[in-house]
Amino acid sequence: MRAAIFGGKGNNQLGERPDPKVQAPRDAVVRVVLGCVCGSDLWYYRGESPHDRGPIGHEFIGVVEKTGEGVRNLAAGDFVVAPFTYSDGTCPHCVAGWTANCAAGGAFGNRGIDGGQGEAVRVPFADSTLVKVPRTGLSDATMRSLLTLSDVMCTGHHAAVSAGVKRGDVVCVVGDGAVGLCAVIAARRLGAGRIIAMSRNPSRQRLAKAFGATDVLPERGEDAVKEVMGMTDGVGVDAALECVGTGESMNTAFEIARPGSIVGAIGAPHGVVVPIDRVIFHDIGLRGGVCPARRYIPELLDDVLKGRINPGLVFDYVTDLSGIKQAYVEMDERRAVKSLLIIGKA
Amino acid sequence: MRAAIFGGKGNNQLGERPDPKVQAPRDAVVRVVLGCVCGSDLWYYRGESPHDRGPIGHEFIGVVEKTGEGVRNLAAGDFVVAPFTYSDGTCPHCVAGWTANCAAGGAFGNRGIDGGQGEAVRVPFADSTLVKVPRTGLSDATMRSLLTLSDVMCTGHHAAVSAGVKRGDVVCVVGDGAVGLCAVIAARRLGAGRIIAMSRNPSRQRLAKAFGATDVLPERGEDAVKEVMGMTDGVGVDAALECVGTGESMNTAFEIARPGSIVGAIGAPHGVVVPIDRVIFHDIGLRGGVCPARRYIPELLDDVLKGRINPGLVFDYVTDLSGIKQAYVEMDERRAVKSLLIIGKA
Repeated sequence: MRAAIFGGKGNNQLGERPDPKVQAPRDAVVRVVLGCVCGSDLWYYRGESPHDRGPIGHEFIGVVEKTGEGVRNLAAGDFVVAPFTYSDGTCPHCVAGWTANCAAGGAFGNRGIDGGQGEAVRVPFADSTLVKVPRTGLSDATMRSLLTLSDVMCTGHHAAVSAGVKRGDVVCVVGDGAVGLCAVIAARRLGAGRIIAMSRNPSRQRLAKAFGATDVLPERGEDAVKEVMGMTDGVGVDAALECVGTGESMNTAFEIARPGSIVGAIGAPHGVVVPIDRVIFHDIGLRGGVCPARRYIPELLDDVLKGRINPGLVFDYVTDLSGIKQAYVEMDERRAVKSLLIIGKA
Repeated sequence: MRAAIFGGKGNNQLGERPDPKVQAPRDAVVRVVLGCVCGSDLWYYRGESPHDRGPIGHEFIGVVEKTGEGVRNLAAGDFVVAPFTYSDGTCPHCVAGWTANCAAGGAFGNRGIDGGQGEAVRVPFADSTLVKVPRTGLSDATMRSLLTLSDVMCTGHHAAVSAGVKRGDVVCVVGDGAVGLCAVIAARRLGAGRIIAMSRNPSRQRLAKAFGATDVLPERGEDAVKEVMGMTDGVGVDAALECVGTGESMNTAFEIARPGSIVGAIGAPHGVVVPIDRVIFHDIGLRGGVCPARRYIPELLDDVLKGRINPGLVFDYVTDLSGIKQAYVEMDERRAVKSLLIIGKA
């Protein structure tokens, strides 16, 4: 089959991989319909994080093609959303709801596990990993939003849930990538009264507003902190959502967070030093991390199917597997928020 | 009046201060009955933290002597517990319950504000700071426990609450100082099913067990981590309470915390680098900080008055103001968990 392959820094190309087969009783093979490129793929693409050479991409939706004999709740032909990690559903972490930390789990598109940027994927623990979706009457827009449940929409939700966003809160989202934009949707969905989005990119600013941001700030660093503190009468925000993963963005989040609040952080950390004095002397907490997407998909699914949220609007560059190189370039050069790959037919 | 004075590293001595007077309408003057030395006093005593020269000590209980014309709910003769910070009760942080972060507040025993290691204290915002206690029938043991509500019992409670301790949880307390021991009480009180206390000091081990620890571990660092992971079948604890403030103790807490849990941290940080990879890749949160004691005192008070908890047992060295130097030496050399100062009569 055709699949995107990581061959080293700057070298994400179309290649060939063996057709996936059922290898264990709980496996399913899924034919990919839509895949995409994640902001976190850029870290290793740019050589800033390690990554095994081989298959890549951890977000996909598709159609079940084959199932192992131990798979009970899925059958060939089922339409499914895959979270970016597979999980057995039975280990203590899964049972507690922390599916991305599954003791037997892992991520798609790394360490030899098939990626979502390819024609098919072997999915371990298919029953406990995949979420079946009714396949009738899905518009292209809905399909794109379903794909965001693989990662970015759930991860934005995780930032908001981790920060404890509740009705009426003043929320600030640091970061205007796909996850930051989805965090705006999540904050709105949880009832935030005011949502301040930090972005200096006009098209991302427009998306943030479409998603529910009440205020958009182009400032960064200390200037952004001054603005937010001014907007909140010096109090700070009820929830700061850190959706970048750099030292500057983490510091900004901690500077604008009010005492007693929690910074919800989901960015893969690069050069982050947690300002411990803000934690201890201002009582500002820190929660987040890799998102238990498998837990969140069911609760977000209905809002997507009913069109109450439209996270699929983050896709602003569309290609197919043959355009994989350009899909990365568009995001690397910040022309695209997120690149969609149309891979198969539903 | 007589009061302990910080004169520089290693120099905490008895001295003279002007008798406190009502200076503002909301002030009260409190005659101190019991005061004590806090583990956090040792940081500046040892020259490891800055501290203004002048009055010291932030924990005290006593009797109201005078009140300003704006004080409504207190009168001369009332017996009161003082939290270690004063707070106006009306700023946004106080209203939200974060009294230690009061915009107009501060700590006793620093920056010229009278300390609890002296004969009397001017208390700003007396109504919103002090908690009145019925003064009849208080045993010496109860009085000592009331004094712990000034700081250490509330702070141990804050560690447990910040970590989200709930019924049946497996909790580990890192640190066997007075706050760590009170955190054992707090975890027990919140219904923890198993409480692992880390201590290698026989008398502190005994206290931990008396307070509700089910297991006591003498190991530290990587050895302690191995033990705890073994005791929890490799899962980690539901709540790790960091009650020291060093880099090693913070790392230990993060190593033993299970994915999705929260490290409750209250130690004043010295050389702490938060292991951000544990936060992000293991979904382990961090909350805590300076304790909103004023908020917690009312909910803990009844348990103290009824003798359901006995945190006053942490006092294992007793002297009066004339013995202030030795009170510090006993704690600095780790012979005493906490030094009590009998200052006035109830």
